Amino acid sequence: MEISEVTAVEQLNAEFYAAFEVGDLDRMAQVWAQDEDVGGFVVCVHPGGPMVRGRGAVLRSWALIMANTLYIQFVLTDILTQVSGDIAVLTCAENIITASEDDVAGFAAGGNVATTNAFVRTGDGWRLWLHHGSPVMLRAEEQ
Amino acid sequence: MEISEVTAVEQLNAEFYAAFEVGDLDRMAQVWAQDEDVGGFVVCVHPGGPMVRGRGAVLRSWALIMANTLYIQFVLTDILTQVSGDIAVLTCAENIITASEDDVAGFAAGGNVATTNAFVRTGDGWRLWLHHGSPVMLRAEEQ
Repeated sequence: MEISEVTAVEQLNAEFYAAFEVGDLDRMAQVWAQDEDVGGFVVCVHPGGPMVRGRGAVLRSWALIMANTLYIQFVLTDILTQVSGDIAVLTCAENIITASEDDVAGFAAGGNVATTNAFVRTGDGWRLWLHHGSPVMLRAEEQ
Repeated sequence: MEISEVTAVEQLNAEFYAAFEVGDLDRMAQVWAQDEDVGGFVVCVHPGGPMVRGRGAVLRSWALIMANTLYIQFVLTDILTQVSGDIAVLTCAENIITASEDDVAGFAAGGNVATTNAFVRTGDGWRLWLHHGSPVMLRAEEQ
């Protein structure tokens, strides 16, 4: 595992969250791989949601979410990036502050999401293959 | 992608769920990779739970869950297995019937979980690198 590969993956990961924060679907589209890059379908699971497969459906899901998000900000913690050949798996905790169109003006909600992001190396560099976010509803186990 | 690799991954995936269904921690331990196989830590997110990293912590989490599960049965649907080099990513829907120690005798609950399972090829064959299950609380999006 080269340091530079880890850095490249983490930069793309940061771009993924930045695209969501500013609500820029074009930037989000640039982050995601083509289905043919992954020999099947790109995959996205939004917290609490069903599995969405295929670039078209995934980008539509982001368009819908962005259209319904007034404000969102991510602080990522516990980032761990593991690269193996042309695949990288990054896991992290998303610490979120958000407000949606449905919320009362001025109200912001927080949340914690456990996230797996898998990336694939393409001819154009690393791209996002899979995003799986899940709500953390239980307290962290004592270890 | 060779058919035989996909089959090997899907057989190990089936063994993962079989080990859970019969509550056999030794079989579960055989399914999971060593931390050194993945250049970091194996990772497990149980539905609604926090991220658990490291083989020791992951197997302890399974011991706890198995000890508190009277009965569980999985029907997997929408399995998609994508192999790239020494890494495989399998996504599926877990359709679950379960009863826990806390439940009233005779009561069984059902649930739907969206799952990402990532596997790594080791000297001893494929092993589980990452399991990420998340509760599906929203209806499937119309597509």
